[in-house]
Order: sequence, then C-alpha cells, then structure tokens
Amino acid sequence: MTFVTILGFIAAGLTTSSFIPQAVKTIRTNDTKSISLFMYLLFSTGTLLWLLFGIFSGNMPIIVANAITLVFAIIILIYKIRHQLAHKL
Amino acid sequence: MTFVTILGFIAAGLTTSSFIPQAVKTIRTNDTKSISLFMYLLFSTGTLLWLLFGIFSGNMPIIVANAITLVFAIIILIYKIRHQLAHKL
Repeated sequence: MTFVTILGFIAAGLTTSSFIPQAVKTIRTNDTKSISLFMYLLFSTGTLLWLLFGIFSGNMPIIVANAITLVFAIIILIYKIRHQLAHKL
Repeated sequence: MTFVTILGFIAAGLTTSSFIPQAVKTIRTNDTKSISLFMYLLFSTGTLLWLLFGIFSGNMPIIVANAITLVFAIIILIYKIRHQLAHKL
C-alpha cells in the first residue's frame, strides 16, 4: 500500500467517524439549538447520494463510509427537526 | 457523462456546500453550545488529509471539494474553541 493510499484511508476514517461524537452529544444533551437544520438537510441528502453512487459504481469503501456517516447524520437531523417542530407548535 | 457520474457530482456539491449554512449560523448567532468540539477536530483533520490526498494524487475534484469544506469547517472549529476557552477561563 502506498503512502497516498494510507493517507486516503486515514482521511476517510476521520471524516466518517467525526459525526459519531456529534450524534452522542446531541442524544445526551437533547440540544440542537446551535446546529444548522439546513446543513443536515444538505449533508444527509448528499451522503445518501454518495451511498447510491457507491452502490451503482460498485465501490465498497464509498458504500461503507457513507452508510456509517448517514446513520449518524440522520440521527442528528431527526433531533433537529423534532426540536424545530416542537418550537413552532 | 453517465448517470452515475452526475450522481457523484450532485453528491459532492451537497456534502461540500452543507458546511456553509452551519458556518453562517455560527457567525451570526455566535453560539456553538450544541456543536461537538470533537466532531470538528476529527472532521477538520480528516478534510485536511483529504486535501493532501488530492494534492498528492493530482485529483482536482478532491482538492477543490475539500479546500472549500475545510475553510468552513475551520471557521466553525475556531468559534467552538474560542467559546470553549472563554467558558473555562
């Protein structure tokens, strides 16, 4: 494995796992006030399309990375939407 | 251009631009309470490594996408670190 390939794997591991601490914090505190709804709408849709891109092009690393990210992004998005709705009712 | 390539471009556009509304919200409200410091540390480091991966492998789309994302992720990270430090002093 080349240096550049290893660099890519570390990069993928970091960006993929980064949404885990945010999801944990959101569940623990039940607070999404400073989180942008629009960010998570764009990001979750984008990650879903990356997942489909991975499936259609048969690229397993893209499938795995985006499936993991999507789970945590969707958790944060659901919390944000719930808070947004509760605030408006 | 194939359907799968177009899908990839839309996915990249969405995930890349998603950090813009979060950065705008953070600057406007000056509030990062519900944002995870650990997420932005992992994510910014990962995006920097993706950028280096793009530079070393000469992949322009990866360079452009991650350079844009890095700017906005770093803005959010700086705000979060400033708030974290101010809270602890």
